[in-house]
Amino acid sequence: MKKKSIAVDMDGVLADVEAHLITYFERDFGITILREEIQGLTEEEAFYGREKVRSVLNSKDFFRTLPVIDDAVESLKLLQENFEIYIVSAATEFPLSLNEKIEWLAEHFPFIQWQNIVLCGSKTIINTDYLIDDHPKNLDFCMGKPIMFTAFHNAKKENYLRVNNWKEAVAVLKEAV
Amino acid sequence: MKKKSIAVDMDGVLADVEAHLITYFERDFGITILREEIQGLTEEEAFYGREKVRSVLNSKDFFRTLPVIDDAVESLKLLQENFEIYIVSAATEFPLSLNEKIEWLAEHFPFIQWQNIVLCGSKTIINTDYLIDDHPKNLDFCMGKPIMFTAFHNAKKENYLRVNNWKEAVAVLKEAV
Repeated sequence: MKKKSIAVDMDGVLADVEAHLITYFERDFGITILREEIQGLTEEEAFYGREKVRSVLNSKDFFRTLPVIDDAVESLKLLQENFEIYIVSAATEFPLSLNEKIEWLAEHFPFIQWQNIVLCGSKTIINTDYLIDDHPKNLDFCMGKPIMFTAFHNAKKENYLRVNNWKEAVAVLKEAV
Repeated sequence: MKKKSIAVDMDGVLADVEAHLITYFERDFGITILREEIQGLTEEEAFYGREKVRSVLNSKDFFRTLPVIDDAVESLKLLQENFEIYIVSAATEFPLSLNEKIEWLAEHFPFIQWQNIVLCGSKTIINTDYLIDDHPKNLDFCMGKPIMFTAFHNAKKENYLRVNNWKEAVAVLKEAV
């Protein structure tokens, strides 16, 4: 039987963008941001406006040096036994990120083949059985079943099946096999 | 009414890979290849094996300097009036190509937004109403209606609706609106 497919977002789901932004804000702007204080805020509210965030996201090596979210590696390896896993990342807005994301995946997730990597803009034409993402804008137009991965900015959204971490994601998907 | 969507392949459909490979083979290997002699051959048969082709595809600036296929620019502009156009290119196999493809599109197709660009591996999870591609391996698994764009390597394939150039593609899609 054909395996069911899962599209897995990178930023905020495999890669801890939140932690990395906090590190960069401290280092580059001397601004201390506490995780517990930004729950439920938008990215722009949490990180002092669009311009500051974009300047960090556009800086060389930001995407290459992102920390991996807890249990993401082991969980994807496990899920790969029963699902066809695709990494689907909105990346074309930040051209510098393209190669960095490929290198980052090769380092941390070498078991994901190039055939299963999608670097895109809008995710509206992606058709998989599941989408694990932290952004409502992607989950809203998802063709398959949307699964919301908890992030500071979606803390107050209640429209989706939520998983707070990778252990919960694996448990939810185990039910689906 | 929501516009119908078209996924448009890059290599062999917007970008003349065939002509560029011929140029590189003459320049780098002193090998002359004539378009009329490679009709119906596979890429490997036409271009002296997998290794030679890959060495060219992996060379810096190959994808950045590809010539644009006749009428592609005007045709996509025209089609954009009635369709949602996505550029969907298998690119993750050649990481060097990622940025070059984005830059190439920005130069020749500046009216295509980053939201509508997909750099992927397998195209099996792409769901659009139409796919214009030169490779049977992509057209075979297409969720929408496949349209085969003529290339030397598909000259003998007869399983798909074929267009020989962009004028024919526009004519076919005009019928679909």
